[in-house]
Amino acid sequence: MLDAQRDAGRLEVALLFDLDGTLIDSVYQHVISWRQALEAIGVALPVWRIHRRIGMSGGLFVSALARETGIELTPEETAQVLAHHDMAFEAQRSSLRPLPGSKELLETLGSLNIPWAIATSGNRAAAQAALDLLGQPDAVAICREQVRYAKPDPDLFLHAAEQLGVDVRNCLVVGDSIWDMLAARRAGALGIGLLSGGYGRDELERAGAFRVYEEPRDLLAHLDELGIRRPT
Amino acid sequence: MLDAQRDAGRLEVALLFDLDGTLIDSVYQHVISWRQALEAIGVALPVWRIHRRIGMSGGLFVSALARETGIELTPEETAQVLAHHDMAFEAQRSSLRPLPGSKELLETLGSLNIPWAIATSGNRAAAQAALDLLGQPDAVAICREQVRYAKPDPDLFLHAAEQLGVDVRNCLVVGDSIWDMLAARRAGALGIGLLSGGYGRDELERAGAFRVYEEPRDLLAHLDELGIRRPT
Repeated sequence: MLDAQRDAGRLEVALLFDLDGTLIDSVYQHVISWRQALEAIGVALPVWRIHRRIGMSGGLFVSALARETGIELTPEETAQVLAHHDMAFEAQRSSLRPLPGSKELLETLGSLNIPWAIATSGNRAAAQAALDLLGQPDAVAICREQVRYAKPDPDLFLHAAEQLGVDVRNCLVVGDSIWDMLAARRAGALGIGLLSGGYGRDELERAGAFRVYEEPRDLLAHLDELGIRRPT
Repeated sequence: MLDAQRDAGRLEVALLFDLDGTLIDSVYQHVISWRQALEAIGVALPVWRIHRRIGMSGGLFVSALARETGIELTPEETAQVLAHHDMAFEAQRSSLRPLPGSKELLETLGSLNIPWAIATSGNRAAAQAALDLLGQPDAVAICREQVRYAKPDPDLFLHAAEQLGVDVRNCLVVGDSIWDMLAARRAGALGIGLLSGGYGRDELERAGAFRVYEEPRDLLAHLDELGIRRPT
């Protein structure tokens, strides 16, 4: 029975990757961009609070902001902040780098015929720029325009698994934030945390990470721990 | 006996504060400055690794860098990186803000006649600018020029306690990084962690923090938990 399932591809494993802080070293640029955008409308939020919100949907970010500062943004102000962030982030694009081991990890998965996709709360333009940087311009990537709710709702990961044709329960979600881990649990997938976005190990484990590695390079060196076999 | 000690001031409590990430919202500006300085000499280090080194001595930072990248800097390159960092940080000075509650906390300690001092791995010029921002230009501040070794060596905190005339074992060290907590333990003081530098709660607790608060405002609201009495 198991062999039949495996032959039919139903036990096939796939990896679903977050992008910012997971494959690309871009979290701190996002933090600085949000800070500039908020300061422009007169909102002063300590930077660490912004850091801990990176990777969640913009709508939830604004709700969290309202609770923490008591400031309710109008829809116009929200749109202004989002646009300012995108512009400030775009201005820093030349400083973005793949995280150590990102390219090698994706290439290795390709050579092992293990399906993978990107699922990001970011927009399509930023995702495409990141994929180009990773040398994977044609990769499957689900972005915020394609789902109603971004992380920590499970939609991005569910959509990515569906596009790969793999049962989401056989997917490993790799991410750097607790929003990735929460969305992974809600999708029924297994979460793997990376420290490269600046969260601590325990924060990720408490949010449900099954394993935590430093960077993609470190994950690549431990693929066996995830049950991913290399040809012998 | 206890009463006699208390009357003689030997049981007096004092607070020793770190500066960056503890009273001033400046950690992310330091991170970006180090990143620019390292890139200028061709060293690419993921940003989260820089973040986790903020607050430690520059010499130890360079040693950690050598281990993690395999790159050994010459003394000239080290000096160049340090100078570039200071310049890049200086350029961002206008973006620095006191953390929520910093000013009120220091004012409250003043009104309660509880001695406090600053102990920072940063230099005197940066510390003075921060003190001006906090409205405390004449506060006792021990900076890296005054000790042989900065954090996580205990020298900065030992020197600060001595200058206040308080036994360091009766001092509470307030800091945002594991380097503060380690230096506090080595000095024989009690460490109190703040999340405002971007470390996670567990990282600080594992490094020895007796309590962890979000920001100075949160610490101010819980002074009783530290045994600090307000006049009744």
